[in-house]
Amino acid sequence: MRRAVYNADHEAFRETLRAFIEAEVVPHYDQWYEAGIVPKEFYRKLGELGIFGIEVPEEFGGAGETSFKFAAVLHEECARAAVSFGGSAVHADLCLPYLLRYCTEEQKQRWLPGFVDGTNMFGIAMTEPGTGSDLAGMKTTATRDGDHYVLNGAKTFITGGVNADRVIVCARTSPPREDDRRFGISLLVVDTTSPGYEVGRKLDKLGLKTSDTAELFFTDVRVPVEDLLGEENRGFSYLGQNLPRERLTIAFGSYAQAKAAIDFAKDYTQQRDVFGKPVASFQNTKFELAACKAKLDAMESAVDRGLDLHDADELTAADAASLKLFCTEAASDIIDRCLQLHGGYGYMTEYPITRLYADNRVNRIYGGTSEVMKTIIAKDMGL
Amino acid sequence: MRRAVYNADHEAFRETLRAFIEAEVVPHYDQWYEAGIVPKEFYRKLGELGIFGIEVPEEFGGAGETSFKFAAVLHEECARAAVSFGGSAVHADLCLPYLLRYCTEEQKQRWLPGFVDGTNMFGIAMTEPGTGSDLAGMKTTATRDGDHYVLNGAKTFITGGVNADRVIVCARTSPPREDDRRFGISLLVVDTTSPGYEVGRKLDKLGLKTSDTAELFFTDVRVPVEDLLGEENRGFSYLGQNLPRERLTIAFGSYAQAKAAIDFAKDYTQQRDVFGKPVASFQNTKFELAACKAKLDAMESAVDRGLDLHDADELTAADAASLKLFCTEAASDIIDRCLQLHGGYGYMTEYPITRLYADNRVNRIYGGTSEVMKTIIAKDMGL
Amino acid sequence: MRRAVYNADHEAFRETLRAFIEAEVVPHYDQWYEAGIVPKEFYRKLGELGIFGIEVPEEFGGAGETSFKFAAVLHEECARAAVSFGGSAVHADLCLPYLLRYCTEEQKQRWLPGFVDGTNMFGIAMTEPGTGSDLAGMKTTATRDGDHYVLNGAKTFITGGVNADRVIVCARTSPPREDDRRFGISLLVVDTTSPGYEVGRKLDKLGLKTSDTAELFFTDVRVPVEDLLGEENRGFSYLGQNLPRERLTIAFGSYAQAKAAIDFAKDYTQQRDVFGKPVASFQNTKFELAACKAKLDAMESAVDRGLDLHDADELTAADAASLKLFCTEAASDIIDRCLQLHGGYGYMTEYPITRLYADNRVNRIYGGTSEVMKTIIAKDMGL
Amino acid sequence: MRRAVYNADHEAFRETLRAFIEAEVVPHYDQWYEAGIVPKEFYRKLGELGIFGIEVPEEFGGAGETSFKFAAVLHEECARAAVSFGGSAVHADLCLPYLLRYCTEEQKQRWLPGFVDGTNMFGIAMTEPGTGSDLAGMKTTATRDGDHYVLNGAKTFITGGVNADRVIVCARTSPPREDDRRFGISLLVVDTTSPGYEVGRKLDKLGLKTSDTAELFFTDVRVPVEDLLGEENRGFSYLGQNLPRERLTIAFGSYAQAKAAIDFAKDYTQQRDVFGKPVASFQNTKFELAACKAKLDAMESAVDRGLDLHDADELTAADAASLKLFCTEAASDIIDRCLQLHGGYGYMTEYPITRLYADNRVNRIYGGTSEVMKTIIAKDMGL
Repeated sequence: MRRAVYNADHEAFRETLRAFIEAEVVPHYDQWYEAGIVPKEFYRKLGELGIFGIEVPEEFGGAGETSFKFAAVLHEECARAAVSFGGSAVHADLCLPYLLRYCTEEQKQRWLPGFVDGTNMFGIAMTEPGTGSDLAGMKTTATRDGDHYVLNGAKTFITGGVNADRVIVCARTSPPREDDRRFGISLLVVDTTSPGYEVGRKLDKLGLKTSDTAELFFTDVRVPVEDLLGEENRGFSYLGQNLPRERLTIAFGSYAQAKAAIDFAKDYTQQRDVFGKPVASFQNTKFELAACKAKLDAMESAVDRGLDLHDADELTAADAASLKLFCTEAASDIIDRCLQLHGGYGYMTEYPITRLYADNRVNRIYGGTSEVMKTIIAKDMGL
Repeated sequence: MRRAVYNADHEAFRETLRAFIEAEVVPHYDQWYEAGIVPKEFYRKLGELGIFGIEVPEEFGGAGETSFKFAAVLHEECARAAVSFGGSAVHADLCLPYLLRYCTEEQKQRWLPGFVDGTNMFGIAMTEPGTGSDLAGMKTTATRDGDHYVLNGAKTFITGGVNADRVIVCARTSPPREDDRRFGISLLVVDTTSPGYEVGRKLDKLGLKTSDTAELFFTDVRVPVEDLLGEENRGFSYLGQNLPRERLTIAFGSYAQAKAAIDFAKDYTQQRDVFGKPVASFQNTKFELAACKAKLDAMESAVDRGLDLHDADELTAADAASLKLFCTEAASDIIDRCLQLHGGYGYMTEYPITRLYADNRVNRIYGGTSEVMKTIIAKDMGL
Repeated sequence: MRRAVYNADHEAFRETLRAFIEAEVVPHYDQWYEAGIVPKEFYRKLGELGIFGIEVPEEFGGAGETSFKFAAVLHEECARAAVSFGGSAVHADLCLPYLLRYCTEEQKQRWLPGFVDGTNMFGIAMTEPGTGSDLAGMKTTATRDGDHYVLNGAKTFITGGVNADRVIVCARTSPPREDDRRFGISLLVVDTTSPGYEVGRKLDKLGLKTSDTAELFFTDVRVPVEDLLGEENRGFSYLGQNLPRERLTIAFGSYAQAKAAIDFAKDYTQQRDVFGKPVASFQNTKFELAACKAKLDAMESAVDRGLDLHDADELTAADAASLKLFCTEAASDIIDRCLQLHGGYGYMTEYPITRLYADNRVNRIYGGTSEVMKTIIAKDMGL
Repeated sequence: MRRAVYNADHEAFRETLRAFIEAEVVPHYDQWYEAGIVPKEFYRKLGELGIFGIEVPEEFGGAGETSFKFAAVLHEECARAAVSFGGSAVHADLCLPYLLRYCTEEQKQRWLPGFVDGTNMFGIAMTEPGTGSDLAGMKTTATRDGDHYVLNGAKTFITGGVNADRVIVCARTSPPREDDRRFGISLLVVDTTSPGYEVGRKLDKLGLKTSDTAELFFTDVRVPVEDLLGEENRGFSYLGQNLPRERLTIAFGSYAQAKAAIDFAKDYTQQRDVFGKPVASFQNTKFELAACKAKLDAMESAVDRGLDLHDADELTAADAASLKLFCTEAASDIIDRCLQLHGGYGYMTEYPITRLYADNRVNRIYGGTSEVMKTIIAKDMGL
């Protein structure tokens, strides 16, 4: 079905990106995959390419775009090559909106140029061992001591946690109020070279192998008050504000993975013979791929609508939850079926479908689980 | 999620329609449901309301609209009230495109005014006992005899077959060619009062109870050559041309039913108490409805994109097949879950959810089964 | 897979039954289907055949069997012919266990001979408008007045409610206790010819068309105290005791329907040609039927284990809930797929698959919904 | 539900095994997992424990058991600890039946004692790059040269391929016959230290990380004729004969994994709090686990019936295909849902659920894909 979301600029960006991935990512990817991390130098190259600056205002070295659609193209091209850029998605998709919305002018001048050129990589630390989706229950504290906060606690599942130069840490600066458990949480931009800041184990995950996911430990880490992001104690509401975009991102990424999976399965089944004819020539193969394609078309309609609503600033929290729920479930189904069509090869990590399968599984979990999405949607329905 | 497909005219039409359904349909519906047919007089009322003339050019008494969106609104309002207008959907959605595209000027003048005011109701007869989706295999023949065709054969599953004044009959006027089984089929507009034209049993169906679905038998029915629609022997290609729209209609109808089902389930579960609290207050109810809503949002994105593509004349056969496949499957799932939330009441035909459930089941079958849709999509994918 | 549950007696019973159905049911079934009820005379024939007496002790005219397996054979044979015996399943499967367990000797002598010969048909009335699965919340009352209870209230969804001669009515004889909402419910065997006993509407259902499902109204119905079943106020616990068997029955019935559905679909697709070859020769048809068969085999293993556990008196409430949940869900899936393979014919009620589809939908609802089953299983798991 | 398949001997074996796994496997498992292989010494320990000799006749050092049920217990205990024994399942479950059935007495004396004590580990090599499930299309050849076969070709996906001492290689010793593509395949027991025998890459798989899956290359490998297994050219039929048992094994393993997954999810959700209460206390958690449990009960009924049929030598090829299809599909569903209940932890490979998820995916593929199972079942149904 004809898509209406992209214009010539997006398509030009796609071409550049495709060439870049071919030249700078694919040749090294197996090595990164094995190592479980991308080299920091690669972020400089992404910076040079302009990936990180797309939505950063021109005065800080960026391109000043306000559309999410360039990021969408990036997702499509990464999925097409079955690669991911490690922690850079967190840097560009998750952290930037916080910086753009809540940084003071002074903070922007300090942080954004390095953000754009890839020398100042950001991460964000919300989840704690034992809290998961219940952010209001976090235990990490930041106690005011003169012109510093003193940070203590631990975080886990921090994507990009090994490579990050700065991490936006959510911490309790005040106890919760009786009538509002969410009060008292602040966002601090923590320099990862600070004394007392420690990167724990790099966690071994089912997929997303090039993402350095880590535990972080804070022992009396002193964070200057000028590194507070936004207002003290109001951080929880900030988190809420960026979640729709984050979920749209995950929904879109799932769509892109599903689309790539169908292409992989189509290619594989057309090239591979069994019982003397291509796997693709069996009715079951055709029907499976057609069923996947119909679902993909619906995903595409949904995410494209989401892109347009996002760019028009009309994407509600419930809209994003709905997109994430539907697209992540649909992608899991599609990718599983496309892997099945690969037979034994689908179980070998050298095949892109296998990597997509492993990568994709987290989409129904992170950025809020499917169960959390349902809760949000139900509330919005008045239930 | 905000929809962008409708304008003020569509919404005004919706209001009119809603009032009409409330006044003219709901009070009589149980009676029609029991009888398995709507009275012919009701078609006159629909004619008066202007339903049949929306897309008919003004010179023949219509409004000259080219958009499918008014029909879409009609689907939504019917589903909302869990009613259907019997054979009138066939008249307006299925038959009209053939008439507009293939009628000569003379035929239009003869047939369209009555089409618009509901006194000349059309049906279409494709399926035969024993052929199903394989139209090229049809056995009904129309043999030229002077300035008439002599029609012999039988058709089945003809919606509106009892009430129709004229039926577009697909018949073989020539044998198939070796290299083209589809050659040789013509469309004849048959007057249902012709000698030899016989309406067989009204078929009892699982749902769509107000639609008079019938078998038709033709024994030497003489059809004047001036009632041939389009060119002789080329009918099969005409059928193909209208199928995308027909399938979009079914996809949209499924969406509308799913939407209504969610509303019914929400209302029911909010009003009904069990174990001392509303069914809607249980997490399972919330999660089920939220899952349904997320799927519905995707359906909405898909059909709205389909509406826009249709109105821009860009909806391909594969697009329509994809929409039909996805939406009919999704609606079946949603409606089944919404029925389940009704408990025992969901099994009683006096409840709208039960009627939707029974009505909906045919959507995966008629207008081409899900299996046929998969075949079309797979072919379009190059498989 | 070889089954081990039946012996020669069961198979002999199967032969008798099959012949009986062929001779006494099939010729009349369309008429009963249309009427929405079976004639009372048919119950006499079932009585003569010995169906009702299988598990009744010989002294009251029965065969004194203790196995459920004859009832299982009955389910298989009914499903095979796509017929159901109206309210007789309630009489024989649901009501009998109450009578055998809780009747006094005197009551047995009064009621069982007529039970066996089909002249004293029983029904059971639990559900009320507005309570559904929450039996403890019932509103019907039976107030002691001398040597009578005075019964007031209403019941709904009473299968066999039109034809029944006696109905076991659950009613409150005392208010619930603070610590036990279930206290205070008693079972009364009510003569349906009593003054104040009124049969309301026969409810129109999606399926089970030959079952006369009705609303009942009680206005000062005087029930002799000697028609109390078991102890006063302890009725709720009696209900619980028979539920495992009732749920096994529904699970088994679902299995039998699924098995029959596969046979219907196999026959249909083998006989029907499309695109010049039998529908059964397409890979999709084969794969669909094979997937259904594998699920059916699992159902068979499960219900056969259930039969053996039941006969050994080892089937727990959670076991029965598990069987009902799995088998009813699996059967719905199988029957839906088998219907789909019928194409348009699957929507015509004259086809057995269509009737099975409509009949089957209630299985996930009655005898406790799938949601109630999950609650029971979860509790048994210690959750 | 009460199970009837195990006796006291099986349960004693279970206790021994559980202690062994606790002492000899769990402490080393992370290391094996990281290395992607188990040390060969471990096989000696399994040999000492008697695992490999269970079904080997006493004269060759085994226990002479004929029941599959000890192997079943082994599967349950491995899944319970979320461990697998690398290539030893292939040795004991897949290779042994070939050896017992087709070895000459002389071969048994040479091979079985080492088989039993774990010093002579077997693998089996069927699949080739480019053939997959279509074994008759294999390209590896064994050409007779005096009293040797000269083996050339390549195999892939060979579980235990790195550690194996001897591999049963399927090779073409004659071209296929016109009327029988399956003719001409022989089984050779190849010493892995033979010149020209080369182990290629150890393949990195999604799961089964401790299994050393490898490619094998044969370049003029000379295999003595006395190492031919069974008759020349009849090997294909031998493969068929052992497949039912192999598929029962996979079905049973899937059941065991699903059972373990439910236990892991139950434990996790009971211990983990979110929004101030255990995850297990939410209705969604209860319902998900209950739905999984009901499906598991059906799997249990099915595999237990399979065990009994197997031991009675009544398990047909279609029975085994049905069990494999149903159980592998059901297990995938269950394990996916149980992983989801773990939230982010479910994506971390240190959690057993994550390993089960990755391990389990191959079950729908190896031993014949689900698609192959459907083909077998359909044929058996007469389709």
